[in-house]
Amino acid sequence: MLRVVIAADSFKGSLSAPEVCAALGRGLARAIPALELRLRPMADGGEGTLDAILAAIGDPGQRKTADVRGAGGAKVAAAYGLVPHPDGLTAVVEVAQVVGITDITAMTTPIGDRSTRGVGDLIKALLDAGVRRFMIGLGGSSTNDGGSGVLEALGLALFDEAGCAVPPTPNGLTTLARVDASTLDPRVAECEIRIMSDVNNPLTGAMGATAVFGPQKGVQPEDVARLDATLAHFARLAENALGRRVAQSPGAGAAGGLGFAFALLGGTFSSGAEVVSELIGLDAALADADWAITGEGRSDRQTLLAKAPFVVAQHAAARGVPVTLVSGAIDPAALAELGLHFAGCFGLPHGPASLADCIANAAQWLEERAAEIGRVFQAGHGARRRTVK
Amino acid sequence: MLRVVIAADSFKGSLSAPEVCAALGRGLARAIPALELRLRPMADGGEGTLDAILAAIGDPGQRKTADVRGAGGAKVAAAYGLVPHPDGLTAVVEVAQVVGITDITAMTTPIGDRSTRGVGDLIKALLDAGVRRFMIGLGGSSTNDGGSGVLEALGLALFDEAGCAVPPTPNGLTTLARVDASTLDPRVAECEIRIMSDVNNPLTGAMGATAVFGPQKGVQPEDVARLDATLAHFARLAENALGRRVAQSPGAGAAGGLGFAFALLGGTFSSGAEVVSELIGLDAALADADWAITGEGRSDRQTLLAKAPFVVAQHAAARGVPVTLVSGAIDPAALAELGLHFAGCFGLPHGPASLADCIANAAQWLEERAAEIGRVFQAGHGARRRTVK
Repeated sequence: MLRVVIAADSFKGSLSAPEVCAALGRGLARAIPALELRLRPMADGGEGTLDAILAAIGDPGQRKTADVRGAGGAKVAAAYGLVPHPDGLTAVVEVAQVVGITDITAMTTPIGDRSTRGVGDLIKALLDAGVRRFMIGLGGSSTNDGGSGVLEALGLALFDEAGCAVPPTPNGLTTLARVDASTLDPRVAECEIRIMSDVNNPLTGAMGATAVFGPQKGVQPEDVARLDATLAHFARLAENALGRRVAQSPGAGAAGGLGFAFALLGGTFSSGAEVVSELIGLDAALADADWAITGEGRSDRQTLLAKAPFVVAQHAAARGVPVTLVSGAIDPAALAELGLHFAGCFGLPHGPASLADCIANAAQWLEERAAEIGRVFQAGHGARRRTVK
Repeated sequence: MLRVVIAADSFKGSLSAPEVCAALGRGLARAIPALELRLRPMADGGEGTLDAILAAIGDPGQRKTADVRGAGGAKVAAAYGLVPHPDGLTAVVEVAQVVGITDITAMTTPIGDRSTRGVGDLIKALLDAGVRRFMIGLGGSSTNDGGSGVLEALGLALFDEAGCAVPPTPNGLTTLARVDASTLDPRVAECEIRIMSDVNNPLTGAMGATAVFGPQKGVQPEDVARLDATLAHFARLAENALGRRVAQSPGAGAAGGLGFAFALLGGTFSSGAEVVSELIGLDAALADADWAITGEGRSDRQTLLAKAPFVVAQHAAARGVPVTLVSGAIDPAALAELGLHFAGCFGLPHGPASLADCIANAAQWLEERAAEIGRVFQAGHGARRRTVK
């Protein structure tokens, strides 16, 4: 009986993490007759994190939705999760569910008018429901408001010179003159907030949110400096109001500055994949396993910066379990480095193939690839053991 | 200590069989620390057969060349091999070395004027040297002369109505009226001729040499019927002269009818890959092996028709050795069938890649692929053995 853990991330643009793991599992089952499969879909704190955690916990009833304001102001039905935890009920929030870059409606609103208020709406609703523990996955946001939206929705007051309320958007913040923290929801102070993020950027500057991630959200090159200065201005006033300095902390620049806002509220940063691996019970699954398989859409040197497959590899290595990587594509330039951490790295195609082919056939090719790799593992398992002469 | 046999065919257009096996071996050596490698480059009787056999025998001095007439009449230096055999010195002849389709000079001669005389020249020279055992690899020829060239060079006389000698070419044979076998070299009758071919076509007809293989050699569609009739006419007269009927035998249509000519001389057909596996000592290498790896440029359903990887798989299966297929490309449509015979089937690319990429990077990707697969085998080998509960 071989015990195999399958803990892959999603193949973004084609398959969710549960779908990836299911396809790998079907393939292995074809190849290895006596098999105990442990499917543990992974995520790195970004898109798909909620699904991965709920799949691992195995109770779809814990998936909830709340109507909150999307990045453009229109209502969105944002999914979140409520999971049991030894220290109390924990909410799993994925900011991409509220202000996701894949929300086409929000993306038609100019970046200067997008806000993260809806993330604050969701947290407030959860506070009302008695939740005090939050796991918040950053990543995949369409916003660049420095997290002013979430702070404003939770009660931070933003005023201009004339004492009028200023909207928590990049455009609104240009006239910001005063920030009042006295109206902030006092329940926030009772909360434990864990921020899942794999981004170490500070809020502002050359490596800040606007300069690095702004362009992919629609910030024009000529607007980067101005927007960055607006966020810096907002950050100074907000930091003064709350008595904390976090704008230059690693991760403050995640999700257009949501990292800054949550850090200001006392949140602590964790590797998203680490938090997910904890929530899904990865270590317990690996404890007496013979083999593990992980994967992601595309593996390259970035994989070794705490992406889900790397976290799986580290947890597996700590337990002496070999782990094989099966990704949509492997960057050949990274293969030597990846080879130090994985017992075999495999891409999807069987021969010449375009990216569109790989995406269109992802599930079938994954299953086939797993079957092929499973046959090799099984062959190795069956090989006679010899002593070296 | 793992004992691994590497017995791959060439990747036509990019790597020879010894190069393929060497790359696979380098990769495995990276992955498996305690390893005994047994490289047995394979071939299927076509191009590369001579190199594979000489590589297995390991004495480059046995590679000889003879100056003979190429398909177009110009001299070519044709390589052949002399290998020891329990029953006497054996010549390994690859007709592609004499009348190969990759001989650009010969290909500028019209197909109607190309002849296999040079193959007869070579055999005659070998007879002069005392050789009486021949392994003749068909395949890859540019000719369609029904083997009339080889027969004429060995003494078969071809005359027209006027009693004048007719050239052994498709054009020459159109005026053929009489064949005289009395002048045939008597030493041919003393010979053992084994024909290596994986083609089962008869000499003529809808499945004959001209209809099936003519077009790729330059036969125009409108000339197929006429040329086929010429070969049928020649075959009748030659069969009468030699007292044998072989034109419809499976394989007579191989190499533009060279199969017919050698069958007429008493040759027997064998699967090329089977003969090669015998000459290279494949069974002895597999006897106490833990694993085998085979491969070819492209694997599809044809692979299961006695191509080199399939012959390796059968010999390995008979000895309980799992065999993994690593090819340049695997036809996805054939994967299920291939999966019945191979412990894993793998193509070259790590992700989206063009055919040109695969060819240009073949050696490096093969090595990497072998390393990855080796790591999985090693992981399987190291997995704890459990009893099923």
